[in-house]
Amino acid sequence: MSSHFGHIFQITTWGESHGGGVGVVIDGCPPLVDLCEADIQRDLDRRRPGQSEIVTPRAEADQCRILSGVFQGKTLGTPLCVAVMNQDARPEAYQEMEAAFRPSHADYTYQAKYGIRNGQGGGRSSARETIGRVAAAAVAKKVLRTLGSGVEVVAYVKSVHRIVASVDPETVTQEQVEANIARCPDPAAAQEMIDFIKQVRSEGDSVGGVVECAIRNVPVGLGEPVFDKLEADLAKAMLSLPATKGFEIGSGFDGTLLKGSEHNDAFEMRDGRVRTLSNRSGGIQGGISNGETIFFRVAFKPTATIFREQQTVSVSGENTALKARGRHDPCVLPRAVPMVEAMAALVLCDHALRQRAQCGWPAGTPQV
Amino acid sequence: MSSHFGHIFQITTWGESHGGGVGVVIDGCPPLVDLCEADIQRDLDRRRPGQSEIVTPRAEADQCRILSGVFQGKTLGTPLCVAVMNQDARPEAYQEMEAAFRPSHADYTYQAKYGIRNGQGGGRSSARETIGRVAAAAVAKKVLRTLGSGVEVVAYVKSVHRIVASVDPETVTQEQVEANIARCPDPAAAQEMIDFIKQVRSEGDSVGGVVECAIRNVPVGLGEPVFDKLEADLAKAMLSLPATKGFEIGSGFDGTLLKGSEHNDAFEMRDGRVRTLSNRSGGIQGGISNGETIFFRVAFKPTATIFREQQTVSVSGENTALKARGRHDPCVLPRAVPMVEAMAALVLCDHALRQRAQCGWPAGTPQV
Amino acid sequence: MSSHFGHIFQITTWGESHGGGVGVVIDGCPPLVDLCEADIQRDLDRRRPGQSEIVTPRAEADQCRILSGVFQGKTLGTPLCVAVMNQDARPEAYQEMEAAFRPSHADYTYQAKYGIRNGQGGGRSSARETIGRVAAAAVAKKVLRTLGSGVEVVAYVKSVHRIVASVDPETVTQEQVEANIARCPDPAAAQEMIDFIKQVRSEGDSVGGVVECAIRNVPVGLGEPVFDKLEADLAKAMLSLPATKGFEIGSGFDGTLLKGSEHNDAFEMRDGRVRTLSNRSGGIQGGISNGETIFFRVAFKPTATIFREQQTVSVSGENTALKARGRHDPCVLPRAVPMVEAMAALVLCDHALRQRAQCGWPAGTPQV
Amino acid sequence: MSSHFGHIFQITTWGESHGGGVGVVIDGCPPLVDLCEADIQRDLDRRRPGQSEIVTPRAEADQCRILSGVFQGKTLGTPLCVAVMNQDARPEAYQEMEAAFRPSHADYTYQAKYGIRNGQGGGRSSARETIGRVAAAAVAKKVLRTLGSGVEVVAYVKSVHRIVASVDPETVTQEQVEANIARCPDPAAAQEMIDFIKQVRSEGDSVGGVVECAIRNVPVGLGEPVFDKLEADLAKAMLSLPATKGFEIGSGFDGTLLKGSEHNDAFEMRDGRVRTLSNRSGGIQGGISNGETIFFRVAFKPTATIFREQQTVSVSGENTALKARGRHDPCVLPRAVPMVEAMAALVLCDHALRQRAQCGWPAGTPQV
Repeated sequence: MSSHFGHIFQITTWGESHGGGVGVVIDGCPPLVDLCEADIQRDLDRRRPGQSEIVTPRAEADQCRILSGVFQGKTLGTPLCVAVMNQDARPEAYQEMEAAFRPSHADYTYQAKYGIRNGQGGGRSSARETIGRVAAAAVAKKVLRTLGSGVEVVAYVKSVHRIVASVDPETVTQEQVEANIARCPDPAAAQEMIDFIKQVRSEGDSVGGVVECAIRNVPVGLGEPVFDKLEADLAKAMLSLPATKGFEIGSGFDGTLLKGSEHNDAFEMRDGRVRTLSNRSGGIQGGISNGETIFFRVAFKPTATIFREQQTVSVSGENTALKARGRHDPCVLPRAVPMVEAMAALVLCDHALRQRAQCGWPAGTPQV
Repeated sequence: MSSHFGHIFQITTWGESHGGGVGVVIDGCPPLVDLCEADIQRDLDRRRPGQSEIVTPRAEADQCRILSGVFQGKTLGTPLCVAVMNQDARPEAYQEMEAAFRPSHADYTYQAKYGIRNGQGGGRSSARETIGRVAAAAVAKKVLRTLGSGVEVVAYVKSVHRIVASVDPETVTQEQVEANIARCPDPAAAQEMIDFIKQVRSEGDSVGGVVECAIRNVPVGLGEPVFDKLEADLAKAMLSLPATKGFEIGSGFDGTLLKGSEHNDAFEMRDGRVRTLSNRSGGIQGGISNGETIFFRVAFKPTATIFREQQTVSVSGENTALKARGRHDPCVLPRAVPMVEAMAALVLCDHALRQRAQCGWPAGTPQV
Repeated sequence: MSSHFGHIFQITTWGESHGGGVGVVIDGCPPLVDLCEADIQRDLDRRRPGQSEIVTPRAEADQCRILSGVFQGKTLGTPLCVAVMNQDARPEAYQEMEAAFRPSHADYTYQAKYGIRNGQGGGRSSARETIGRVAAAAVAKKVLRTLGSGVEVVAYVKSVHRIVASVDPETVTQEQVEANIARCPDPAAAQEMIDFIKQVRSEGDSVGGVVECAIRNVPVGLGEPVFDKLEADLAKAMLSLPATKGFEIGSGFDGTLLKGSEHNDAFEMRDGRVRTLSNRSGGIQGGISNGETIFFRVAFKPTATIFREQQTVSVSGENTALKARGRHDPCVLPRAVPMVEAMAALVLCDHALRQRAQCGWPAGTPQV
Repeated sequence: MSSHFGHIFQITTWGESHGGGVGVVIDGCPPLVDLCEADIQRDLDRRRPGQSEIVTPRAEADQCRILSGVFQGKTLGTPLCVAVMNQDARPEAYQEMEAAFRPSHADYTYQAKYGIRNGQGGGRSSARETIGRVAAAAVAKKVLRTLGSGVEVVAYVKSVHRIVASVDPETVTQEQVEANIARCPDPAAAQEMIDFIKQVRSEGDSVGGVVECAIRNVPVGLGEPVFDKLEADLAKAMLSLPATKGFEIGSGFDGTLLKGSEHNDAFEMRDGRVRTLSNRSGGIQGGISNGETIFFRVAFKPTATIFREQQTVSVSGENTALKARGRHDPCVLPRAVPMVEAMAALVLCDHALRQRAQCGWPAGTPQV
């Protein structure tokens, strides 16, 4: 269950950072979707380590292989297994970390929960696990496209430490995001972020920030009342990413500083459709998309693994000190951008198919 | 699916604000748990309308009845159905709202999704639906108690608009929370909040705020890697509550302003156990509880239904204005406290039983 | 989980034979389906005790009430709760059975599993639980009808003990089935069955038999490869009914006596569609409906509760003898007919919506 | 969903007969179970093609690789991915079958459902898919062993066509089953079966039969009331295997020929435990194991693919004739034995962990 996500477009990820490899099985994918490995590789390349000077230098090409579910360039409707074999594994770099628990990392809790852990790299808690998610989301995006909804997911780095970018979620493009290695579409802020991350790394330290994500052209009617509200599933999706500490949608925490008369989004008819004059709801009302742009923010803490000596406890239960080695991101934000997009696409795709199941398709024209 | 929550301790809520009633079916509850209707009524009374002068005056006793699953004061291991019949329904107060969509409410999205809605009260989107959750959580708390873990859930109003309380999550008690109608354990802040809510109501307006929740004495090892991280399930649980806009755990969004060396929680041995010196992790690391106090915050927006004229659209698609009638909370925060506690207890109970399934019990001593 | 059935059209039943009542929550039902209590009552009346001289005389009107999910005669898309309160409960008739375990009944296994049981009537193991299933299936049938597929489910008593009816699954009508109290559409066999059941009852004994079920006008394409094959889900559905011992589809066990050349169903084009010349497959190939009539048989054992002294063990673990009292069916077959139909309709409805989710609708014209 | 099985011990299989490979992801496996590839290979070798002169000659070593979830010889508690790459694929042998639908095969229904199929081999409908199930079951058996329950699963060929073996489910051993290539522990019947299968194959024909399965030393208390009755889950598991047409447990269809007084299993105290004098219940009462041997039978039809000309329809919708080529089993029974065992072990393992979740462990001593 713990590695399983989605109700109709269902994915199960597998794999550890050091071991045979990592990957995903996608069950419930519609048939007849054009798909090849290059479609998936594009997003994996945005996620992979070693892609720039401000991320971890681990050298993994992360070359994917589709092992099932595709025939002559189209999905079969049966499960897709997508696998990436591990290559640049250096277990020797983790000896200290096998002996002592890294502060604020998953080492201790995995050991306590299971009585065992793969101490080479982060094991299952490694961000390497997100390869399976990003691969599955590449397929989900194609499904969304084929459903004709024009859904567009664009995430970007909103802030690193105290450096905050100015970005308009209604208009930002993926090209702007990909224009620099910080994945921040505000060029001035991006340069500041890059300089700051380099400085922090040179100090053996790490830093966090906020990713913002805009989902445009969402049909009205996605999301379900009560537990599977669209924002609830987005929140779970985002908090399931490593290093996340918070999620807010639309007006978010700042919305608590407004009165109802200031916060409500008035309705009006525009171009024959019901639209809102403002969008403090963030595109979702009552758990269901209202057709406006969905936008939300995700807080990422500073990377736990740093190259400074820290107080900790050994596996055998003695106080000790630990200074990490290995290859780690001084700031996860640039690589977190495709992960956030991936989880958003998975949630949207699943809810689109759920809507088709219960109410027919296209959304917003309910049939029995 | 949309009204279904939990993997082992599974609940399904049902009911609309105006209709036969509301309730919940609990499947997967352990047998032999002492349980009577009074155990459930206690929490329902904290949630019910009309309990104080700062909440909605709708007069509902919310008297529950256990229709199945209990025999001679003990759970049978079979499904419990708990029902509360609706009484003080005044459909005539909703005529305007049946004709036009309330801004920032679920009226429009329900109509667009399903092509139909129960326009009397909020229908399924009403906070009345949370009766089923609170009832189920009363059972979940008893299960947690019987599992011997001593888990204690205490939520409270942390802020209303710009009024912020000072509370220590490690020591706050439910008695302190229940000592005033604001459910804020900081008496000075509580009085300010009460005065402010009254004033806002007199203006026909509404206001939001933040609920904070502490979960103490959580065993090490609850929560699962990848998608069902404990904080991910808590985030989903909280964002599934009506009117929520954000969730943050431990250091939350503010944690993005720290460097790794400042943010990490150093480990030490204390009283023979692995403990942390600080708790910016909020009691969860790698998705799994580490034995420290779990604490998180939930943002609630100002109530959408206000007694002022607002611009909106009619059901037939014409621009119009709407001024609500009916009985509504000027501020949902005091009544949100038991709802937040309820969702937290449901998540913890389910994960405790999941841990027992996979690794045995007590947690932290994994067996095959 | 144990009281939960279906993936999209999801039902959760609740209730014991003696207690507040029994019922069902239906989640995932499409909106806009015309529905009133009479639609459900019709099928409940076919299931209820006391309907004829060959079934249990327990006097229960089994009057249902829809507590949620319907507004102005149409489904809302939100959960329906349907409840039937218990009335003719006579706990005193079960004193002996609370003290000793009825042979071949669920008394002992419930006690061993849970350490507790509701010994009044069969508790959760009572056939009374199937009220929730029959009620849900009445809704499922309406959904199937609205999907335009013309699916028709007709079950009937195929045999009682050694009395075997001659019935053509392609043409039998529900009117023929309902024409006699045995629910056997072969009038001569029906009369024999009625006489035999009366004789067996007069001897304080019980008897079993076989129900056959035909599902006609099933669209091509329902059912899924691997675990959720249509026949696999039907088998589970049928074996989940009380007192069942076997399931076979199409040629069934007798099909093992044929060679491939005799067993295969040749294809031909007929009326512009792919059809089979024979139907030993029973309408399903590779787990997916092929458009031919689905037909299967379900074996029901003789009722376990008989009015003769039997050797057994007391709750306190001593050898003893038990002669049952209370009101019981000497033969469950006539009342099992609507239960079999109900489970078949639930499986078909869920798979129709699953097909719509993954491949669009109507079935047999796959879209992305 | 369709390739997903189990609630706690969850498996997802993937792969087609011709393509990259086949395999399984196991999620929810307890940690600390000793496991290596040889543990899995043993069962795969019993399932693989080419193992004897009466099965398909396709030459596949079916060598498995564990890609994740195991570290230093023990399970980690995280997902295991087990993969077998395809080797002896001969797509050219399937040209005719790509052009026309094999009678009684899944060709037509897959095409109609999805609008596409992998016509090389059976694609997803191939028995090759069961590799993932057998691999997962090898792990499930180890889990059952570690839970200390001593559960033992022994399946065997009970009949081929009209040749019926005489076997005692209480005492038969796997050694007796493996003593001949028919996997029938009655040596005389086995020799008849072997001769008959060879003869049928020489005629280009195929033949079916019945596999019986005994599960011994099952703890009291496994299985759940209502939908997830142990026999219901076993029925679904068995009917999900390719070529199955029926399932019966204990007295099965023949039990309908007995009266209650003849059919009931009287209870007695024996060796301090509640035992039954007979076992027509087949080890399950009210959906829950009673501690007696569980035994059931599964009907397998004759293989659909035969080497004789048959009437059928082409992909383009014209009447035509088809004579298959390729490599196929003339009788699936010998290779079906490990598949039946596998599905039985998966059901038992999942229900054991479900019991531990809800009622604690060992079963039969319920705790909260």
